[in-house]
Amino acid sequence: MGSEQRFEETIQQIEGLDEKAMTLARARQDRLTKPPGALGRLEELSVQLTGIIGTLVCDLQRKAVIVMVGDHGVVRQRVSAYPQEVTAQMVANFLRGGAAINVLARHTGSRVVVVDIGVAEDLPPHPGLIIRKVARGTRDFTRESAMSRKQAQEAIGVGLEVVEQEVRRGLDLVATGDMGIGNTTASSALVAAFTGEPPERVTGRGTGITEEGWRHKVQIVRAALALHHADAGDPVDVLARLGGLEIAGLVGVMLGAAARRVPVVVDGFISGAAALVAAAIAPRVKEYFIASHRSVEPGHQVALDRLGVKPLLDLDLRLGEGTGAALCISLARAALSVLSDMATFKSAGVSDRSPDAEP
Amino acid sequence: MGSEQRFEETIQQIEGLDEKAMTLARARQDRLTKPPGALGRLEELSVQLTGIIGTLVCDLQRKAVIVMVGDHGVVRQRVSAYPQEVTAQMVANFLRGGAAINVLARHTGSRVVVVDIGVAEDLPPHPGLIIRKVARGTRDFTRESAMSRKQAQEAIGVGLEVVEQEVRRGLDLVATGDMGIGNTTASSALVAAFTGEPPERVTGRGTGITEEGWRHKVQIVRAALALHHADAGDPVDVLARLGGLEIAGLVGVMLGAAARRVPVVVDGFISGAAALVAAAIAPRVKEYFIASHRSVEPGHQVALDRLGVKPLLDLDLRLGEGTGAALCISLARAALSVLSDMATFKSAGVSDRSPDAEP
Repeated sequence: MGSEQRFEETIQQIEGLDEKAMTLARARQDRLTKPPGALGRLEELSVQLTGIIGTLVCDLQRKAVIVMVGDHGVVRQRVSAYPQEVTAQMVANFLRGGAAINVLARHTGSRVVVVDIGVAEDLPPHPGLIIRKVARGTRDFTRESAMSRKQAQEAIGVGLEVVEQEVRRGLDLVATGDMGIGNTTASSALVAAFTGEPPERVTGRGTGITEEGWRHKVQIVRAALALHHADAGDPVDVLARLGGLEIAGLVGVMLGAAARRVPVVVDGFISGAAALVAAAIAPRVKEYFIASHRSVEPGHQVALDRLGVKPLLDLDLRLGEGTGAALCISLARAALSVLSDMATFKSAGVSDRSPDAEP
Repeated sequence: MGSEQRFEETIQQIEGLDEKAMTLARARQDRLTKPPGALGRLEELSVQLTGIIGTLVCDLQRKAVIVMVGDHGVVRQRVSAYPQEVTAQMVANFLRGGAAINVLARHTGSRVVVVDIGVAEDLPPHPGLIIRKVARGTRDFTRESAMSRKQAQEAIGVGLEVVEQEVRRGLDLVATGDMGIGNTTASSALVAAFTGEPPERVTGRGTGITEEGWRHKVQIVRAALALHHADAGDPVDVLARLGGLEIAGLVGVMLGAAARRVPVVVDGFISGAAALVAAAIAPRVKEYFIASHRSVEPGHQVALDRLGVKPLLDLDLRLGEGTGAALCISLARAALSVLSDMATFKSAGVSDRSPDAEP
């Protein structure tokens, strides 16, 4: 199947949540031995997950963090505190299990799936590495389009295929992750293009640049926006001009997971930018999103607001890799455990509210 | 040993955190393969835990949620949406493993320790229940002191003993939990007495009372404060007049855990009120607190502000039992896993920051 055709079919397959299952989940929450609503957002999360999965009992055994990795031509403009070779070095770190995402994924019993979708260097083959390089990094978007439209489409297709393969292995929940020196710059440009917010509102310190470095980065984002005049009405074009290969890959993961009714735990700023693109392509995909955390990057809040989602955690994280998403997997499992394992007032013989309580 | 003597000795034993271990933890965080500080509050948490435990490697295997249960004489004033018998019924639910705290504790591999420190009804013996009834509930504090000073001291002593027993079983971390119909009213009164905030700012809807019920509850808290003129300079007196047996028990748990260098994950509003009392008795205990979540109860934020702690989660919870604390145990374990299991830049062969990056 051609990647364009697969893309169109996937979008068609994204349906709304299972309202009947959600009604049952809400009704069960109200019968459990606690005041109705007393578990707050954990209850909402259980209802959303039930609506996605379509059944009241699921223990989210099979979980994957898909880490898309790509390089960025814009690093030539000195936008990062780290050199580009760190992208490839971190892939090696992922494969040896020493990165933060490995530790946090192990902690929650999730597998880490590492995809070279656009690392500048050639990476040696490794049984844990999926090599689906669309290009050796993007081009410098202050000079030209980061990707061709065809490359962006192809990178989305890689995301679709990778998630499909994970579904075949068994997938109850997917978390998104990223690695790519320079990718906060691309994400800032994408968020500005989709929301119309000025560069200084959506640009942050990334891996930790100086105040002067930040002002330079804002100028770079501004220059890119001025060059491309991207039209948010054509999201794949915006993605191609300003995005990154790993961001496009994550768009594919999100769309593909939603089409297969798999909940998507969306990590921080880079994943948030990808989520904006995915939602511009297929608005219903948002119903499958679980926003994991609020990043320190200011553009992330702008993206979350536009998506209309509220993150579960606010822990001043700014690492990416899927680390915030991995931390939320435990909350997702807890939410479903409550729904399936708690006693009801009736089964436990506990008196319900006084007759004079609020109806 | 007399309970007064044990109390004084415990307070003497609460020392500051291990600064040397914390310095080592901070230095290690900065060598791990991530930009310094990129894991935000997870890094801070790892440093605090290291300072409490005194060693860089601890996997928090042995964890307990101590749920103190007591009744409140003030329920006569119709301050709750649920009848008093629910307190005893919920104990039965805890012992059968059907309550939210059981589900969430299991989820994180923690044992639940249920203590009848003041349930109004006689509870049948059960291998999972510690019966250390100081009284059959408190007295109505709108008429008289909720407890005598001696009872409050005795209830603190029960908390000290229970945590000591758990330390003997092996305890790397303790979470606080509570059950007691009417206990948000007592907690509001305590928070008002310790912070000087007006009753309407520290009183919430509890298990879900009506707007009219809320106004009545505020009046009840106001009446109690006016009757007792409690002096925050004598925290045990304030606790005796306005508190609850389970709250006093939690004060003991907090002080006892800190004396044994065990991290204390503090649950929501009721635990927050107990934390205010404990900190007024021995200010250093605060260094052992991990504030788990921000409750929907408005008085909880007031208590957190006074304690100077920032909760990890903000999920609109208002259940108590230790549920918010249980959800945080997973974060505490994740924080320590990162510290002990991540690769360093050197070990992973990853390039550190560019020379022109921020020093």
